[in-house]
Amino acid sequence: MSETATLAAWIVSNRIETVPEDVRHEARRAIVNYLGCALGGSRDEAVDIAIRTFGPYSGPPTASIIGRAESLDPLHASLMNGISSHVYDFDDTTPKNYMHPTSPVASALFAYASVYPVSGRDFMQAFITAFEAEMRIGNAVYPAHYDVGWHITGTAGIFGAAAAIGKLIGLSHQQTIWAIGLAATQASGIREMFGSMAKSFHPGRAAQNGYSAALLAQAGFTAGEHGLEGPRGFAAVQAAKYDLSKITAGLDVDYELRANTYKPFPCGIVNHPTIDGAIQIHHEHHPAPQSIEAVRLRVAPLVLDLCNQTNITKGLQGKFSVYHGAAIGLVRGKAGIQEYTDEAVDDPAIKRVRDRATAVGDASITEDQAHIEVELTNGEKLTRFVEKSLGNIHRPLTDRQLDDKFLDQAVLAIPLEQAEKLLRQCWRIDQLPDVNELVQSALPQRR
Amino acid sequence: MSETATLAAWIVSNRIETVPEDVRHEARRAIVNYLGCALGGSRDEAVDIAIRTFGPYSGPPTASIIGRAESLDPLHASLMNGISSHVYDFDDTTPKNYMHPTSPVASALFAYASVYPVSGRDFMQAFITAFEAEMRIGNAVYPAHYDVGWHITGTAGIFGAAAAIGKLIGLSHQQTIWAIGLAATQASGIREMFGSMAKSFHPGRAAQNGYSAALLAQAGFTAGEHGLEGPRGFAAVQAAKYDLSKITAGLDVDYELRANTYKPFPCGIVNHPTIDGAIQIHHEHHPAPQSIEAVRLRVAPLVLDLCNQTNITKGLQGKFSVYHGAAIGLVRGKAGIQEYTDEAVDDPAIKRVRDRATAVGDASITEDQAHIEVELTNGEKLTRFVEKSLGNIHRPLTDRQLDDKFLDQAVLAIPLEQAEKLLRQCWRIDQLPDVNELVQSALPQRR
Repeated sequence: MSETATLAAWIVSNRIETVPEDVRHEARRAIVNYLGCALGGSRDEAVDIAIRTFGPYSGPPTASIIGRAESLDPLHASLMNGISSHVYDFDDTTPKNYMHPTSPVASALFAYASVYPVSGRDFMQAFITAFEAEMRIGNAVYPAHYDVGWHITGTAGIFGAAAAIGKLIGLSHQQTIWAIGLAATQASGIREMFGSMAKSFHPGRAAQNGYSAALLAQAGFTAGEHGLEGPRGFAAVQAAKYDLSKITAGLDVDYELRANTYKPFPCGIVNHPTIDGAIQIHHEHHPAPQSIEAVRLRVAPLVLDLCNQTNITKGLQGKFSVYHGAAIGLVRGKAGIQEYTDEAVDDPAIKRVRDRATAVGDASITEDQAHIEVELTNGEKLTRFVEKSLGNIHRPLTDRQLDDKFLDQAVLAIPLEQAEKLLRQCWRIDQLPDVNELVQSALPQRR
Repeated sequence: MSETATLAAWIVSNRIETVPEDVRHEARRAIVNYLGCALGGSRDEAVDIAIRTFGPYSGPPTASIIGRAESLDPLHASLMNGISSHVYDFDDTTPKNYMHPTSPVASALFAYASVYPVSGRDFMQAFITAFEAEMRIGNAVYPAHYDVGWHITGTAGIFGAAAAIGKLIGLSHQQTIWAIGLAATQASGIREMFGSMAKSFHPGRAAQNGYSAALLAQAGFTAGEHGLEGPRGFAAVQAAKYDLSKITAGLDVDYELRANTYKPFPCGIVNHPTIDGAIQIHHEHHPAPQSIEAVRLRVAPLVLDLCNQTNITKGLQGKFSVYHGAAIGLVRGKAGIQEYTDEAVDDPAIKRVRDRATAVGDASITEDQAHIEVELTNGEKLTRFVEKSLGNIHRPLTDRQLDDKFLDQAVLAIPLEQAEKLLRQCWRIDQLPDVNELVQSALPQRR
């Protein structure tokens, strides 16, 4: 069988009962992290604009949007969940392919589950299956696909959304093959959009269009049978080099959820070692901003490829500036959502330190590492080498740290007491008779 | 200025009064051809399924769909117009880049104009401007972009839809730059879908998503400023080789509408010389199907790359079989929509001839040429060399032939008298006070 047909057969047949408990626990962690991010980002201007723009084009507003009082149809709710969960760049990341894998899948699933009854068991089964599908497709085309400029969260993510909804609505093998084809032919999102609202649009559209692909396939809308491996299929068209065997090798054994990581800081993961080290220097030495003469960074070359923005004026740009990351760590000793606002980028103390920061790419430094040297006006030098950044796969956030991260973000949209209730529901999502119970806890109280 | 900024400025400032009359006439021809195709395809199963699938997700049904009694919101109506106008592969083609340029643009424009008042002047101004924009972007990335497997009608077409709606709603220069970025990051559609319903989905989604891009940009949803030329922009990501100067060179002077062609046959244009020659043999010699022993084709190598399908069972597959093209020309002496149904593919006489056809690629034969040799059971050989295929840029369909093509298709959806009235409206579209008058003539009578 072709890779498309093999993967489709697995999507149809996979059952949660065969999924090891450590993988299921990692799925719960991914959901906790996702819902915190979706709540934290739900009030962002990008979401406001998208709801205002598409509201008049929405079908009957039967679906809930995480963190929002408005309702839309489930396709549009998927889009909004995707934008809010990614807009602060705080969602999960798989360092082996730089995907943000949960957003496209969970954004569609929660929208669906707010309209149709879905048990926690079925929800988790669809989530784990779809996460696996999109990750394997991402792995097959990484790194060539990412390197040329595709935002893999959008391009591979759409397969996850299609698989998730396809699983819930019970697509047949043939229909799943078509859904994969319809996802392949809508896979989009380019890295040129990084630093603008359009970046968060990518997982949103992936969720919405993947969901659509499943609906079309169910209705008999045909697509090419070889969406993944065909000579004009996803891999051949969107990657100069690829390895299709990664799509099907070790199914049922190697679960990609085990490769997931959760960010401690709401920005591109390649900045994390620098921020981590800067925070350590802050806590140890408390250098006053006006005492900092120069900040010299040695970082992995990819950091400068992705996050070399200088002369920035917007919070969103700060996420793509390793210099801003160093500055907030040194000045504030933390890097939360409040450190990536327009105001924070404008903060004179942060700006002063940021403008004094320089970086060189060094191939001997891995993407989990950074070397920081702070030179003070009195000539003193403070240095720090971060060997394994916090949140990295070898130094993961604990469940407790995930709780803290969740609550910090959730309270931006809902009261603390409600957030704590929602958090408890998240950890036992498998046992919920209807996941909508949880979605309703993720909505602001209507007046 | 960058190419994105220059093109955006031109989109904003271009006025129909500066467009030469020959270009305006070609625009009218494109509209006549488009509306015939949209009517002809409007009853296809692909459109039925898409309306059934997305109907429950449509906003208030304010917009008309060409050839259909149903209404949807204007974004969904754009999608349906795009599917119906391309589903029979009968729409216009620009041989220099293999785009079907009118469908993405006109599908969005007619949906918009069925809801909001648009004068014929403004409609034509938006159409000509948008056609030019998408073609120039297509030219910049062709042929590398197409060769690797992108369906350029979808990928470059989305820029046309964004430019068209952006022009009508009066986007500023900055907003047009964002709209181009939002189009760039949604550009999709792969050739692996050829031969399935998903192919016609491409111009549909291009129309719908380009329209969305303009709406988002108007509302202030930001995107990267260098959607076309940036290091991770459309050209760099989606073409191994490209020439950005083609986007801006000769604006206001070289109009790409002059490079447009209209198909006499509802299938991939590379099959046309073969069909043309087969029809000529039919009319001259009337060989009985059972007297045909072998059909030997010599064709441009691209023909076998695109249209080498054998053992076909579906009408849609027939469009991608040069053998089917030869068979219907020889057996029926014509190649209309009725020759590309499942029934026609199953017709024993056609099947007999198709199964006896073989083809070799010959680099000395251009894509407008074909050599056909028919060997009869009595040993006699009938040969024909087509030097310039009918419908090619050097042997275009006349306005009168376009009328015939229009009416042949239109009567599949509306009565002849109504079709004739609509045709008259098309030719004087520039002068209509409100284009909705024309759209209403393109709808079946409601009972």
